[in-house]
Amino acid sequence: MDKVVCLPRLSRVAVCGGTHGNELSGVYLVREMLKANKKVTDKDEDNSLSVTTLISNPLATQQCRRYVSRDLNRCFTNASLYGPVSDESPYEVIRAQELNATLGPKGSPEAVDLVCDLHNTTSCMGLCVIAYSDSDWICLQIFRHLKRQMPDMQVRYLNYAISGQEAYSLDTVGKHGFGMEIGPQPHGVVRSNIYTTMKLGVQHMLEWVRLFNSGTVFEGGPVDVFTVVQNIDYPRDPETHDITAAVHPQLQDRDFCLLRPDDPLFQTFSGETLRYHGEESLYPFFINESAYYEKNIALLLARKHSVMVPAIGRSRSTEEGHKNMI
Amino acid sequence: MDKVVCLPRLSRVAVCGGTHGNELSGVYLVREMLKANKKVTDKDEDNSLSVTTLISNPLATQQCRRYVSRDLNRCFTNASLYGPVSDESPYEVIRAQELNATLGPKGSPEAVDLVCDLHNTTSCMGLCVIAYSDSDWICLQIFRHLKRQMPDMQVRYLNYAISGQEAYSLDTVGKHGFGMEIGPQPHGVVRSNIYTTMKLGVQHMLEWVRLFNSGTVFEGGPVDVFTVVQNIDYPRDPETHDITAAVHPQLQDRDFCLLRPDDPLFQTFSGETLRYHGEESLYPFFINESAYYEKNIALLLARKHSVMVPAIGRSRSTEEGHKNMI
Repeated sequence: MDKVVCLPRLSRVAVCGGTHGNELSGVYLVREMLKANKKVTDKDEDNSLSVTTLISNPLATQQCRRYVSRDLNRCFTNASLYGPVSDESPYEVIRAQELNATLGPKGSPEAVDLVCDLHNTTSCMGLCVIAYSDSDWICLQIFRHLKRQMPDMQVRYLNYAISGQEAYSLDTVGKHGFGMEIGPQPHGVVRSNIYTTMKLGVQHMLEWVRLFNSGTVFEGGPVDVFTVVQNIDYPRDPETHDITAAVHPQLQDRDFCLLRPDDPLFQTFSGETLRYHGEESLYPFFINESAYYEKNIALLLARKHSVMVPAIGRSRSTEEGHKNMI
Repeated sequence: MDKVVCLPRLSRVAVCGGTHGNELSGVYLVREMLKANKKVTDKDEDNSLSVTTLISNPLATQQCRRYVSRDLNRCFTNASLYGPVSDESPYEVIRAQELNATLGPKGSPEAVDLVCDLHNTTSCMGLCVIAYSDSDWICLQIFRHLKRQMPDMQVRYLNYAISGQEAYSLDTVGKHGFGMEIGPQPHGVVRSNIYTTMKLGVQHMLEWVRLFNSGTVFEGGPVDVFTVVQNIDYPRDPETHDITAAVHPQLQDRDFCLLRPDDPLFQTFSGETLRYHGEESLYPFFINESAYYEKNIALLLARKHSVMVPAIGRSRSTEEGHKNMI
């Protein structure tokens, strides 16, 4: 067998829904998990795992909106988390600091071991594991496990290459973390098939953590990683800033299908086709995501590369350390 | 030829988008039409047609929300239109009265001849002509025209059997009127295929009006009409009122496919199937429409019946009257 990379056990996992209050699969899955058990703690000596489930943005969830004042999932940079707040600060900035106190502090030894943050997209993206690294072996091995266990599902790994301090999303508060993004599903809607996929994804993720904690060694292997390269905005009217075209019907719903130079990109509202003028063939995703209109993003583009993930197992020493802590 | 029902020419037509500010096909189509021509008036003596295009709810459109204070498309009952308003009245109540002044007054001889109000749904409904009557021969003949001209599209006629005074939607302000509802499209998203379908639908509708005004006689024939019978809410937690199930995967996206007693209706978040306990097989539609969660509607059910639409043509006398008016 290959050399096994040994990593500390994952004792505390957080599963978060409603970070965006209108992405309903995560909202209803977390509520279901909370109903089943406020806090599931398996006290088996060699296999202890504490799973915290929470609604990240209760106010936005209550109103079935993405956010109330500011996109919560952009409020977890170090600058935002450790900046001053007052009663007048946006709700989400305050809430991010609360979540950081509960699940973090980000970057500290006290942070939970793993954050899995549940999201939906209107884009036809299947199930994506979204992380900020192509060398977090925990996230990559969980991704391999999901891919193995869910053979009927398109499962992909997306890497936003942003440093930890600059990384802005809730999942960066944990020692490890990723977004579980599933689509297509309109915001403000829960579709049974998407809900069930998310439920299975979370079950398989927790199953992997339990196996890992109990000493299972996971073999290594190559993994396709999509690394974000750039984003493309809609064509817009220079005066009103209104969009003047929609995603081209030949591109719509073709997330992760290679976009080649001169392929159709947009269709203007008067019927004209606009083409992709990039020089490099890249993989489009988040194509026509509803929430990204206001962020000036019609789609993102990624480069695909292969990452060799090592075999991993639980480190003994850390387990001892962990036991001593208890 | 059958007896021809003669009806007055349609001199003034209104095409409205953004009655719900996050239903984007209509918003962008109306903006496109406004750009092309603020007000298209064909001054041909025998064929005069004035088309007014407008954004019904500019504030909600600007914010990409269904509405700001209240659902505008429920504010056109006589009670709401002719009730007192003050500065504290909800924005949409005031706006409805403005629109009634512009396009109505509802029920008066001054009202525009035809209102076509553009909507999108997250449900898989194809193109629906939605009206409050199964004997408005103008709406039914326009429906027949759309069906003929758009053979690749599912085109259906929905009848909400509500009296004129109680009828609550913008299209009831005109002498004739209907909603053009097209889906599936997530709210806050514009999909090229749905936009193009709506554009074609409006073009064919206006083409029909021009043909009608120019003296074309349209033959009669039978038409399938879906008349709304009832609606069904989601199963809900009796305490929190949160929904506890999603539309069943076997029902999702099967709008207008007959629902039979004992067919699956919902799948609870814990995985249980709930069945349809009605005694009558009916046609479901607006299945899992995002905006209807807050209205306690998971789907509506309709009865299908056949209506014999008579041949219609333009009445001479009214044309003379119209000419005299000019």
